[in-house]
Order: sequence, then structure tokens, then C-alpha cells
Amino acid sequence: MVLNDGGDEVKRNKNERRKLIEQTIQDNPFITDQALSEMYDVSIQTIRLDRTQLHIPELRERVKRVATEQYPQISSLENQDIIGDIVALEPNYSAKSLLTISPNDVFSRNNIARGHIVFAQANSLCVAMIKHGFVLTKESHIHFVKPVHLGDSVMAEAKVAHHDDKYYEMTVSSYVGKEKVFEGLFKMYYISEDE
Amino acid sequence: MVLNDGGDEVKRNKNERRKLIEQTIQDNPFITDQALSEMYDVSIQTIRLDRTQLHIPELRERVKRVATEQYPQISSLENQDIIGDIVALEPNYSAKSLLTISPNDVFSRNNIARGHIVFAQANSLCVAMIKHGFVLTKESHIHFVKPVHLGDSVMAEAKVAHHDDKYYEMTVSSYVGKEKVFEGLFKMYYISEDE
Repeated sequence: MVLNDGGDEVKRNKNERRKLIEQTIQDNPFITDQALSEMYDVSIQTIRLDRTQLHIPELRERVKRVATEQYPQISSLENQDIIGDIVALEPNYSAKSLLTISPNDVFSRNNIARGHIVFAQANSLCVAMIKHGFVLTKESHIHFVKPVHLGDSVMAEAKVAHHDDKYYEMTVSSYVGKEKVFEGLFKMYYISEDE
Repeated sequence: MVLNDGGDEVKRNKNERRKLIEQTIQDNPFITDQALSEMYDVSIQTIRLDRTQLHIPELRERVKRVATEQYPQISSLENQDIIGDIVALEPNYSAKSLLTISPNDVFSRNNIARGHIVFAQANSLCVAMIKHGFVLTKESHIHFVKPVHLGDSVMAEAKVAHHDDKYYEMTVSSYVGKEKVFEGLFKMYYISEDE
């Protein structure tokens, strides 16, 4: 009986679940439908229906809205040159971007994301983060921690570790959910507008 | 007078020049029209006309022919997944690929090739070179030595430095003409078919 009570709690009714989903997305706007479906033990179709009823757009759209707010702060490259969507940005300090792995990004044989795609997201985030007109990657030391798969949403988090009058050094860690999939050190060359 | 003789020698007549161009392309099938034009001090249009008269196809076509011969040797990825054209390959030992930088590969602002494109060519060459069915990049330490520009033909040369029963370690150096533009160390994980 006690065990069954636990089961009943998991199967929440629709309205309770929708309230919780709304709160969850508010707390973490970049959560995937897949993660929500696992969290609330319902199908992805149910999550989609819940979102529609709640007037919450799909992840892609939520990311775009946040990303668009960041773009005016970016001076080192054009928006269309960024790989992934910048969802947080403190220029010359830290930044985050989200990239969903599409069929074009994977090896056709095993649906594992190609290394240069995960690298490109991180590298492009490093360029975008530096508030100067001319920025190039000089060196990079990277580690592909876990394979990334088709459909995964990769959150890359970059932070400046050190900078002088020619270079920024930054670290990037990328995650799928809570799992780290990539880490890298990037040494970025820049030309200051004063020169 | 002696000085003028030197000048006359440089301005060769058309047939002499065409013979020399034919020999040059035979020695180095991946030479660009740009490099030939500088070498023989004539316009690129003249080089194109010379090639047409000599029935020598353009670089792109010459590369494709050589690349196609290498493909049957590649077991770690599908041909369409390779970035650049493989123009030489000794499986598990060494390989070369050629990539011409297209408008899609550069920052729209300054026509400099994006770091991940030069990385992708090198990384993809490392994967292609390993004669096993399952290969992933584990680590990489890379150095962007010089900027690469729109239209440049980048020759990447990879060599195995070390291998054991889980990893291949390889070095890649990439050149535009004789100038080194990129170097990298790649640690590649593979699963042997025996396992």
C-alpha cells in the first residue's frame, strides 16, 4: 500500500503536471522535450501537447528568442557566422551557447557528432565572447570526453581564464544534460581598436 | 645588355611556356592556377587558356580524379563525410588531403578561413587514415600558425607518430604553397575488428 502511494504520486493529473512543466521550463528555458518526458514519465507527444496548451514554444524557438537578445553585444563576428545559439553573454568574461546536433553534423554511419562540430561550437563561442573587431584562434587543446549523438542539445560554457594585450585564454566545457562531453582551452589572438 | 638578356629569358614564348607548365603540373598535380601564374609571370586567364590547349583539367577536377582512387582504401568513414579530398593514403601510416577554401568556409567580415574548417580537414584526414571501422577523436592539440584565406588550397599532411591497441597518435601539418598554416597532434580512439 505504501509502495503504491509512491506510484500514485508519480502519475500526476494533467493540470498538476502542466503547472510543474511550466515552472521547470521557467527555471531552465533550455530543457529539451526529451528531458521533460523523462522527468515527468510521459511521452514526448504528451509534453508537446502540454507545451501547446501552455503556449510555450518549442526549444528551438525559446533559444532563438534569448539568442537574439545577445547579438547586439557581439562585435567580433557576424551573427550568421556563429555556430550554435548564444544564450548568455558577458563580453570578455563568459558566455554560453546551445547547439542541437542535426543530421548534417553526424557521421552518416553511426550518428555520432563529428569532432569538428563540437569544436566549432566552442571555438565560435570564444570568438563571439571577445569584444573586439578582429579575433583569431591561435591555439587550442581539446578533449572529447564522451560521444555526442544526433538530436543531442549541447550547452557550451566558456570563461576567460587569463588575458593580456594580445591574447585571451579561455576554457570551454560542453554538456549534454549534466554529462560533460567536451572540454577545451583556447588561446585567442585579438587586435584592440586602440592600435 | 646582360640585364636585358635576363628579362628576355623570363618572357618565354607561348609554346615554351606551355611545355614548362605541362611538366610543372605533372610534377605537382595540385598546384593552383594562381601559383602557376606567379611562377610564369602571366595572368591566370593565360594559365587557364594554356591548360585548355594542353587538355589539362582544372585543379578541382585533377584532385577529384586522384581522390577517387584513394576511396576504396578508407574504412573508417563514408566518402561524403571527408572534408577535403584525400590525394595520398597509406592506411595506418600517412595521408594527404587538399581543401580549397570556399566562401562558406570564411568569416563573412574578413574572408579569413574559420578555425574549425582547417581543423575539420585535419581531423577528417586522421579518421580516414585509420583502417578500422570505428574511429573517434579523443584529444587534439592544435596551433593555427598563419591565417588561411578565401580561395587558398590547403594541403594537409598527416603521419602516425605512435600507436597501441586503443589509440593512434598522429601529427598533421597543413600548408598553403610552402607556408605552414596549421599544425596539430591528434589522439584517435579506435575499436579493432578483432574485439
